[in-house]
Amino acid sequence: MPAKTKTGKTETGKTKAIVIHAAHDLRVEEVAASAPGAGEVRLALATGGVCGSDLHYYNHGGFGAIRLREPMILGHEVSAHVTEIGVGVEGLRVGQLVAVSPSRPCGHCRYCAEGLPNHCLNMRFYGSAMPFPHIQGAFRQDLVADARQCVPADGLTAGEAAMAEPLAVTLHATKRAGEMLGKRVLVTGCGPIGVLSILAARRAGAAEIVATDLSDFTLGLARQCGADRVINMGSDPDALAEYSANKGTFDVLYECSGAAQALAAGIMAMRPRGVILQLGLGGDMTLPMMAITSKELDLRGSFRFHAEFAVGVGLMQKGLIDVKPLITHTLPLHRAEDAFKIASDRTQAMKAQIAF
Amino acid sequence: MPAKTKTGKTETGKTKAIVIHAAHDLRVEEVAASAPGAGEVRLALATGGVCGSDLHYYNHGGFGAIRLREPMILGHEVSAHVTEIGVGVEGLRVGQLVAVSPSRPCGHCRYCAEGLPNHCLNMRFYGSAMPFPHIQGAFRQDLVADARQCVPADGLTAGEAAMAEPLAVTLHATKRAGEMLGKRVLVTGCGPIGVLSILAARRAGAAEIVATDLSDFTLGLARQCGADRVINMGSDPDALAEYSANKGTFDVLYECSGAAQALAAGIMAMRPRGVILQLGLGGDMTLPMMAITSKELDLRGSFRFHAEFAVGVGLMQKGLIDVKPLITHTLPLHRAEDAFKIASDRTQAMKAQIAF
Amino acid sequence: MPAKTKTGKTETGKTKAIVIHAAHDLRVEEVAASAPGAGEVRLALATGGVCGSDLHYYNHGGFGAIRLREPMILGHEVSAHVTEIGVGVEGLRVGQLVAVSPSRPCGHCRYCAEGLPNHCLNMRFYGSAMPFPHIQGAFRQDLVADARQCVPADGLTAGEAAMAEPLAVTLHATKRAGEMLGKRVLVTGCGPIGVLSILAARRAGAAEIVATDLSDFTLGLARQCGADRVINMGSDPDALAEYSANKGTFDVLYECSGAAQALAAGIMAMRPRGVILQLGLGGDMTLPMMAITSKELDLRGSFRFHAEFAVGVGLMQKGLIDVKPLITHTLPLHRAEDAFKIASDRTQAMKAQIAF
Amino acid sequence: MPAKTKTGKTETGKTKAIVIHAAHDLRVEEVAASAPGAGEVRLALATGGVCGSDLHYYNHGGFGAIRLREPMILGHEVSAHVTEIGVGVEGLRVGQLVAVSPSRPCGHCRYCAEGLPNHCLNMRFYGSAMPFPHIQGAFRQDLVADARQCVPADGLTAGEAAMAEPLAVTLHATKRAGEMLGKRVLVTGCGPIGVLSILAARRAGAAEIVATDLSDFTLGLARQCGADRVINMGSDPDALAEYSANKGTFDVLYECSGAAQALAAGIMAMRPRGVILQLGLGGDMTLPMMAITSKELDLRGSFRFHAEFAVGVGLMQKGLIDVKPLITHTLPLHRAEDAFKIASDRTQAMKAQIAF
Repeated sequence: MPAKTKTGKTETGKTKAIVIHAAHDLRVEEVAASAPGAGEVRLALATGGVCGSDLHYYNHGGFGAIRLREPMILGHEVSAHVTEIGVGVEGLRVGQLVAVSPSRPCGHCRYCAEGLPNHCLNMRFYGSAMPFPHIQGAFRQDLVADARQCVPADGLTAGEAAMAEPLAVTLHATKRAGEMLGKRVLVTGCGPIGVLSILAARRAGAAEIVATDLSDFTLGLARQCGADRVINMGSDPDALAEYSANKGTFDVLYECSGAAQALAAGIMAMRPRGVILQLGLGGDMTLPMMAITSKELDLRGSFRFHAEFAVGVGLMQKGLIDVKPLITHTLPLHRAEDAFKIASDRTQAMKAQIAF
Repeated sequence: MPAKTKTGKTETGKTKAIVIHAAHDLRVEEVAASAPGAGEVRLALATGGVCGSDLHYYNHGGFGAIRLREPMILGHEVSAHVTEIGVGVEGLRVGQLVAVSPSRPCGHCRYCAEGLPNHCLNMRFYGSAMPFPHIQGAFRQDLVADARQCVPADGLTAGEAAMAEPLAVTLHATKRAGEMLGKRVLVTGCGPIGVLSILAARRAGAAEIVATDLSDFTLGLARQCGADRVINMGSDPDALAEYSANKGTFDVLYECSGAAQALAAGIMAMRPRGVILQLGLGGDMTLPMMAITSKELDLRGSFRFHAEFAVGVGLMQKGLIDVKPLITHTLPLHRAEDAFKIASDRTQAMKAQIAF
Repeated sequence: MPAKTKTGKTETGKTKAIVIHAAHDLRVEEVAASAPGAGEVRLALATGGVCGSDLHYYNHGGFGAIRLREPMILGHEVSAHVTEIGVGVEGLRVGQLVAVSPSRPCGHCRYCAEGLPNHCLNMRFYGSAMPFPHIQGAFRQDLVADARQCVPADGLTAGEAAMAEPLAVTLHATKRAGEMLGKRVLVTGCGPIGVLSILAARRAGAAEIVATDLSDFTLGLARQCGADRVINMGSDPDALAEYSANKGTFDVLYECSGAAQALAAGIMAMRPRGVILQLGLGGDMTLPMMAITSKELDLRGSFRFHAEFAVGVGLMQKGLIDVKPLITHTLPLHRAEDAFKIASDRTQAMKAQIAF
Repeated sequence: MPAKTKTGKTETGKTKAIVIHAAHDLRVEEVAASAPGAGEVRLALATGGVCGSDLHYYNHGGFGAIRLREPMILGHEVSAHVTEIGVGVEGLRVGQLVAVSPSRPCGHCRYCAEGLPNHCLNMRFYGSAMPFPHIQGAFRQDLVADARQCVPADGLTAGEAAMAEPLAVTLHATKRAGEMLGKRVLVTGCGPIGVLSILAARRAGAAEIVATDLSDFTLGLARQCGADRVINMGSDPDALAEYSANKGTFDVLYECSGAAQALAAGIMAMRPRGVILQLGLGGDMTLPMMAITSKELDLRGSFRFHAEFAVGVGLMQKGLIDVKPLITHTLPLHRAEDAFKIASDRTQAMKAQIAF
């Protein structure tokens, strides 16, 4: 009789996974593999992108009140090839490349019923230390997933498909901004989320996009991806002042830095009734509330995504959004820790991916 | 040939006004009166309400970067009787009670053209030290105003009509919240703006209203004006915790205190996608951004009003909103300074008005 | 071993129900009763309101393409007392009065997942001939329902609780209109839905409400329920003309008549960017599209409800909406057919209810 | 002393204009020219596009209740070079190519004050027979216009600049649709407005665009401009049926045909809560109201534009929208009537322009 895995699945051997044990203690080690149940598929991981939250676990063992309490498989930006199809699954075929959504809402709680699955009370998002036991991630060569997590990615490279997750984050934010046609947009913070926001804003019709960061490397990529102007706030700290006259300029701000200073400078450059999308995750921030109130700004948190995951795959497949310039590094699995180190350095890397 | 007043009007004698010279230097003194020009009316002031910003000038000589630099007539919550009608004015008659809007946008700038006159680049709002020379206020027995500032208030008392201005502030915020039917509402800060927000939210269909403050006196009035529950955060600082479980409770928060602590506690009690209306004017505030982002809250500044001024007069005339309980004190002009002192004490006063 | 009912439930005897066999063939007859399963409750029906769609089946055997093909229990506006509680049900107690929502979405289809359960692809709404076999209704003395259909109605009369369903229809429409504070509203058609729309619009802050119909009886009730002006379009067909000058007057139109003529007249009286809520169910209508286009009107269908059912019960319990004036007739079960006849006559009846 | 023109301007000679006298009576004739006043510029017309409403005057002498009652200069889609600059004009220079907006709202009426200038009560839109005397159009070699009508079009061809007006119509509609990212879009009617709607929808992020018409020629251009699928409803009348299953498919419908049949077919293919933008101007239309109501569709009229005129010029200048494929014919002024005839034939022409 075969052994059972922790989650009650039938164990079918071992597979390699990237497991974080503590800050700076990242290991490629074997974990139990299992067979797909009804409604599930078995996947051979193709590519995994290293995200900012992965880096927080690697560099700091967590962020804010969220801390590692047991070893956890990392990873939530993944693409894979289907290797086995469970009972009752339709619309997928063995060998097909899929983008795998890390979002697994319960489908039954109050917020799921309201059509807000990203606020699910029982969310099981890959690679999250938030509930305990932690939600294990997707950086493993052999992975079983729900079929509905898998969006066919025919025509994309495995690297592009693994960008579906961060792209979805920015598409979700863009939808929260409302219509964007002809708008003037500011993006603060040009990591992957910032640069993908530039692509998303342009796709949604933004007329002018200005982007800020402290790294010339990321700003170069921001420009390549469509920013009309890029500003290094380190070398040119007052450059936004010209946009602040006459109550300000920008209709929309994507705040992707998580830095209070960037948000505060952005607020001064917003025109009355402008919309600020807060994407960057930081701790408490001190904000110029008088400007928010008197200009009637609209500061909207934006958190994860849901339907936008498949939307993003479709836009990439149609050639309407091109994420390839962001993928600056791809390393093999045995160099996983190098990928984390490279991804931590904004002077040379945008998105580092691991090839499984 | 008659002398000209500072604003180029023909001077027609003197009238008494309430003038602030510096913090705690409030004088009832004579200023020049003038005749109405085309499109204007002359008014005998009936009632003037003391507002929080008047109190800032009186107690502190200004607020934030806005400071008194010359003597300024205070006052922007006023009702009056029409005494003389200028050329070309229609729809008003001598003797009629009117509520006088202090909002005087230019009608020509970018924001006026966009239908956002509360963001007028050339606003001349009564009793503001913001541009220099300051914009003189309306606490004067004899006042010339544009006819379009005057909303007929037949059927109201002069005291009610003088409440049109703060009521408009809360109606504007309520409109910014979007539809309110059946919503759960939190109000932090129960000064006049907070209590009027309770009336406005209920009028717009709120199902449940919880209000917080530090004064049992104002909370008593909040309850009388429709709050389902009132909480003294001084004596019961953890009372909001029960609303914070399962990602929170309230759909809408009217933040009327200007206190970072109140806003932060409110944020924790908001449900995902809740809307926060920031009405309270304070300085910089430190906010729990992680909660704003992960719950996708929507923090909207709300500033002044425009069309809502006449809307509020109409709702009062129809008996759909009753502001009378808020008017706790009415003093004669020669006791103006007492009115300011009383209005500064939240343990005994809600709205103090001056009868001219 | 006990027999099974058609739906696979264990049969537990017989109960009386109101069954429509064909146009004008309405019978009170015995049908199988059953015991509550897990998550269900057993109910003793208290009151049932006769709705317009019930009348269509009674008078015409259906409406549009929807036709009776087998006998069907009518009824979807019901209140009841809990008599038995199934396994796993919380929050209800035996003897409690509940309003019973007739809306039973599947919870799993695309639209349920999007938070739009009123568009469920597998909806099982009480008393609908739409799918075949028909969805049986709730006019039966003994009824088993899902616990989540039951909203506690403590403090209401059984008649009021049975009004929760049509009230929810108008609350849903009101929410679709967006914020209503200070708006000018036209209601065309003053049957129960029209008069409840008046109550809902006022609750949401409408400043002025004008209502039209062809019956002085229903217009009298419209006035009693808050309409500022009522117009009998039969005796005063041009009365809306005064509202049509200068591109029109009304911000919101509740079209509750299903009559093209009423909608067309309403369109001419709408101001630019006005919102029309189409509630009345009729066949094809010929509309003045030039006016819709050039005034940029916004014609929104409004269909049934979901969360608004509980919202309405709460607003009635708090005394914020009073539906009692609409209940003009209450008849005992054995006079069910009389209730249908009376409800069909708009010159004497608003809502006719049946006491079970 | 120089003569005065009808509008009180100083006459400065004669210029050639395209004047409609009656159906099929189109003349190129001389009219009075004048010098620019304060805030005005004098323009040498470059290019004028023939619009559907121009064609209605030419072919039918008007449309609906709007009829020619005196000779009228046609034309409202024009670009020009600046030849003289009036007093007080800034931001324009002699020789500069400009797109000239035909929209001249009063700036003072109720709707202008609300920020809805396209609903101005005193609109003076070029080439409109609506008020009497008619508003003369812009098809004249020498034209005086307000400086604020003129949007610098540096970098565009004169033909492109003359497309700014119809492009603005579709950008306005797109903004009325709200956010469009990843949406599925149907366009019914592929004249210039339909094809520009395809460009606008794609620019705003539409993922899938299906277009219908009766002409293979226009459908070919629709495909060239980005439609993913085109359907000739003449040869394939049931092709939309596949989109109507399970309550429908499309999120947004641009109805650009003005034909009730096209709108009705589109309605059946819309998914619940879909948005229909009614751009096509037709007479009364008979609509399937049951589908509108039960799917809660949102039928929004869209009429002209305002700020979108400059937005469109900017998007063309940045290469974000390319209108050149639509300009199928350009004829010299002396062949103006030929341009009207060609533009009337949808089997060979999309946009016909006249070079002045």
